[in-house]
Amino acid sequence: MKVNGEDFRTIWMDGQSVFMIEQNLLPFDFQIHESKTYFDTCFAITTMIVRGAGAIGAAAGFAMAQAMLEAPNEGFMDFVLQAKEDIEATRPTAQNLFYATNRVFKAGTRSVDAAVKEAQLIANEDAHNSRLIGKFGNELIKEKTNILTHCNAGWLAFVNYGTALSPIYMAHKEGKEVFVYVDETRPRGQGAKLTAWELKNENVPHVIVPDNAGAYLMANKMVDMIIVGADRIARNGDVANKIGTFSKAIVAKELNVPFYVAAPSSTFDLDCPNGDDIVIEKRSEEEVLYQTGIDSNGNLAKFLVSSPGSPAFNYAFDVTPAKYITGFITEKGIIKPLAQSIKRICKNDE
Amino acid sequence: MKVNGEDFRTIWMDGQSVFMIEQNLLPFDFQIHESKTYFDTCFAITTMIVRGAGAIGAAAGFAMAQAMLEAPNEGFMDFVLQAKEDIEATRPTAQNLFYATNRVFKAGTRSVDAAVKEAQLIANEDAHNSRLIGKFGNELIKEKTNILTHCNAGWLAFVNYGTALSPIYMAHKEGKEVFVYVDETRPRGQGAKLTAWELKNENVPHVIVPDNAGAYLMANKMVDMIIVGADRIARNGDVANKIGTFSKAIVAKELNVPFYVAAPSSTFDLDCPNGDDIVIEKRSEEEVLYQTGIDSNGNLAKFLVSSPGSPAFNYAFDVTPAKYITGFITEKGIIKPLAQSIKRICKNDE
Repeated sequence: MKVNGEDFRTIWMDGQSVFMIEQNLLPFDFQIHESKTYFDTCFAITTMIVRGAGAIGAAAGFAMAQAMLEAPNEGFMDFVLQAKEDIEATRPTAQNLFYATNRVFKAGTRSVDAAVKEAQLIANEDAHNSRLIGKFGNELIKEKTNILTHCNAGWLAFVNYGTALSPIYMAHKEGKEVFVYVDETRPRGQGAKLTAWELKNENVPHVIVPDNAGAYLMANKMVDMIIVGADRIARNGDVANKIGTFSKAIVAKELNVPFYVAAPSSTFDLDCPNGDDIVIEKRSEEEVLYQTGIDSNGNLAKFLVSSPGSPAFNYAFDVTPAKYITGFITEKGIIKPLAQSIKRICKNDE
Repeated sequence: MKVNGEDFRTIWMDGQSVFMIEQNLLPFDFQIHESKTYFDTCFAITTMIVRGAGAIGAAAGFAMAQAMLEAPNEGFMDFVLQAKEDIEATRPTAQNLFYATNRVFKAGTRSVDAAVKEAQLIANEDAHNSRLIGKFGNELIKEKTNILTHCNAGWLAFVNYGTALSPIYMAHKEGKEVFVYVDETRPRGQGAKLTAWELKNENVPHVIVPDNAGAYLMANKMVDMIIVGADRIARNGDVANKIGTFSKAIVAKELNVPFYVAAPSSTFDLDCPNGDDIVIEKRSEEEVLYQTGIDSNGNLAKFLVSSPGSPAFNYAFDVTPAKYITGFITEKGIIKPLAQSIKRICKNDE
């Protein structure tokens, strides 16, 4: 997708190096980070230079391929196995990570060249699936549509195109008049910081709104549909996603606004029966009490935005029960939030 | 109420000057602002040195009295009428503002002295009514109660005690175990900045939560009741309050959490048939795109917290239809959100 008019992917491999957009600096600075070794790439995953389910998967696959390129002839397998362990320890809850390391490792048993090709294939598949999500989602978007989105499920979280934003990009390219309400997404502000940055670079008309504005916008018929991404979807259709998603879904249902979740089939977890089984990460209160931004000298800084000495709670995700969801936009088409529909599209993967 | 252990009111008039707590500096700095003219006081309302329904009402009443003290003998009425217009233009959504200017203006037809006395009376009535709201609201609070509140309807928004927080203060003083979830209340952060500051000064246990956390907290049975304030209530019970109130009310109804609105009867506007007639103030996008906070050197500064060049919408209020409200906590008791109940308590005022 476009950055200052030039095409980029979130992450790519060239020779022995992995290149990625330094996401910790966005939206205030745009830099490409080069990882020359698999260990550099592990560091980039851990420090969130690269973030988002799809992008992490691609990074892990590339790191596994790098390890094979780096491994000495003598002790090749020891080196590679140690590398696999290192990569898988970076973000142990990210399912795509294990999927990628295993696929590349397996390909590497044929040849190092095959491993590199497999890693490239994983990244390309991610981009391809995101593109298909865009294609199917675009069919839901009418000529003039106002869409609200929460958090960032754009191309920065994948290799290209994204999930929730992919249908919007597709509709915009086709010349449909789409307008996007971007939820700020407190506490970390991924909407105001990343989604707005993506949309501006693609010239998609948009406006940042406080998370609080949802019901006002919907009651005043300013929102035609909502599209969000997902971190994990249980086999009954319950969706874990960024905190605030559940509130938006309840309000959308009450005010008759369609609520879609866009995600590749790899986000569905058939081993997870329902939302109650999804453990919600509680993050540091500092993310609520402090904010990062640019000061008047143009420097990135952290500052206190709440009453000194008061504590905060910071649940990173919430679970939206399936009954609030209009449909899932997947790379295999749009499905209802029903156990049998989910099972069907996931079975095709095997 | 207490500030560092010392008792204060939010606003008071002494001689020709109006004194008020500089709320833009809170919670980081505590200063008293002096307005020497009615125009200074208008400026203080517009720039939110004083904010909140009751405090704005008191400020408007004092400003109207100031105008009469300032008005020249020749052209007295022209001056006063211009002043009335200026005062009423400061915050057009605030019902108490018009109530106060009209009362003081009417008293001023007897004498300037009567106008000043009327303004003082309005401020004293505000404090008295807030205390009664606390008394009635406290009856709803059980021995151990977790309460969520949005924005700041504490004593800083009134002359003393507040509305939504007054029952909490009363319950806390009685030794009930109350715990308060304080909505951050983006974009201006009145919850994180003012409500948290108030509660800390009164030693009430509390925690700041992102506005996005509401549905998570309610679904996990962490909230027993919600109490918010109101900027204006239509005669059918529709409530205009800080943006985000409507979302919380919808979620509360869906998840069976009682949702109370605490407000003095002066907040009810019998001339306003329903919420559709309430004009919603649209404020500067800067409040969304930038945040104010304390930098690492301890200085109050404005920071850019969103992607540069993206616009924002900033609706200051939303309207919660009466059907989402469990009850109103007023200085005359707790009433249902029904036209006849509202008419009854407002009639007593005449």
